[in-house]
Amino acid sequence: MPERIFNNVTIIGVGLIGASCALALKGRGLCGTVCGYGRKEANLKQAKELGIINEYSLDVGKACENADLVILSTPVGLFKKIILEAQDVLKKNTLITDVGSVKGPLVRELEDLMPEGVGYIGSHPIAGSDKSGIGNARADLFVGARCIVTPTERSEKSTVRQITTLWESCGGKVEIMDPMLHDEIYAAVSHLPHLIAYALVNTIEDDPEYLKYAGPGFRDTTRIALSSPELWRDISLFNRNNLIELIERFGNNLNVIASLIKNADAAGLEHEFSKARTLREKC
Amino acid sequence: MPERIFNNVTIIGVGLIGASCALALKGRGLCGTVCGYGRKEANLKQAKELGIINEYSLDVGKACENADLVILSTPVGLFKKIILEAQDVLKKNTLITDVGSVKGPLVRELEDLMPEGVGYIGSHPIAGSDKSGIGNARADLFVGARCIVTPTERSEKSTVRQITTLWESCGGKVEIMDPMLHDEIYAAVSHLPHLIAYALVNTIEDDPEYLKYAGPGFRDTTRIALSSPELWRDISLFNRNNLIELIERFGNNLNVIASLIKNADAAGLEHEFSKARTLREKC
Repeated sequence: MPERIFNNVTIIGVGLIGASCALALKGRGLCGTVCGYGRKEANLKQAKELGIINEYSLDVGKACENADLVILSTPVGLFKKIILEAQDVLKKNTLITDVGSVKGPLVRELEDLMPEGVGYIGSHPIAGSDKSGIGNARADLFVGARCIVTPTERSEKSTVRQITTLWESCGGKVEIMDPMLHDEIYAAVSHLPHLIAYALVNTIEDDPEYLKYAGPGFRDTTRIALSSPELWRDISLFNRNNLIELIERFGNNLNVIASLIKNADAAGLEHEFSKARTLREKC
Repeated sequence: MPERIFNNVTIIGVGLIGASCALALKGRGLCGTVCGYGRKEANLKQAKELGIINEYSLDVGKACENADLVILSTPVGLFKKIILEAQDVLKKNTLITDVGSVKGPLVRELEDLMPEGVGYIGSHPIAGSDKSGIGNARADLFVGARCIVTPTERSEKSTVRQITTLWESCGGKVEIMDPMLHDEIYAAVSHLPHLIAYALVNTIEDDPEYLKYAGPGFRDTTRIALSSPELWRDISLFNRNNLIELIERFGNNLNVIASLIKNADAAGLEHEFSKARTLREKC
């Protein structure tokens, strides 16, 4: 039996990732009591009935006042507001992390809000999907998953160690990464593809009857357009600069293809497509 | 045991679809001898050794001279050249179809090339994938697959019936469609997604090390960038007008998202994403 590493854990936002954190920690005996906070009481009540959390509060301060570990797992746009509301009640030595898909400047902004003695380090367990909600939560969601941890020059070594232990104990493979680099990489391999999937689906807005003819190609290409609009709204805004640059780069690539089609440049098209195929074969 | 519907069948281009046609027809006792034509003798030899075809020729005329049914399954860019080469040897009452992903004006151009007494009607069995080659061919590839058949006002009813029987006998679900409408629909649900997948992969050309961080979202969104560059080069050129219009429409949708991000318009972004999600849920 692994040792308990935290007594009181508070999950802020009990959705797919938050609930899976609770299940992963409780299921392995890694924590004592889990308290949930959220905006919808019905969801918290259900999470309690399902044994995902032990208790809940609709008040951030109350949910956090006894916490040894707080995991922020709401859409990223709410993180700062939550810390501002909980600031005054957090105990010394409380550890805070988040599971947001953006890091970058947000990590430093959150660091600035932490009271004396409260350690914060950002995390990004790569375990989300187009599915959401506690109904899809699983104790083994993080097993084998890459978990990016993004300390800064202000982070205590012991805090980095604790957050690393948290994810490794849940089965994750931790990788330490600079928060700015994190956002560059994930803009390219995750955030941009989401924007493209949403835009592609909207392209057949005027001909929805064509969807009947969509095969596996269309369905796979647009699967992530099923993802939570609220989550992706926040991610898009927080990773704004990288995304604006990448949308432009992608647009240029698509325009190259459009020009080759217009000019009936068969060799040029085959070259563009082959280049992409060779690159895609690497992942 | 189903009845034999064709004696001599010729497959022009023995790849994934062509070889699967051969296997589907032979496996069900629907035809006599299958002759293959292609440019690579090694591939034809292997297809013969595997029992996919009975014989082969590297000469289009010889491959077609005894055919009761010819199935064109090369990249679409070669169809006209092949018919021009075979024109003089085709028997009266030979039936010709193709399995190309574009129809539209090409169907009428091919009709114009047919000698007196030779019937041609276009087909598009929706059974391709990013996989190619005879190694992936299967006798049941068309079972349950939508098979679009695109007659024109010049098509004989008996020919439409024969082509319908061909696909239904192989397990397909036939849908009769105007060739121009076919190209509009498939530009939206298949061809544009391929161009986008290729362009998206090329967006990380300068940072190929980021691919290490690609998760299921990126992999699904770009899976079809593994498709044959040669096939998609031809499809892009033949469906040129529809694609140029759709690339523009898609580009406008992506620009809407980019502007909302630039203006930090959270509500606007959520609206765009929700619209796409609702539409995507229908397929």
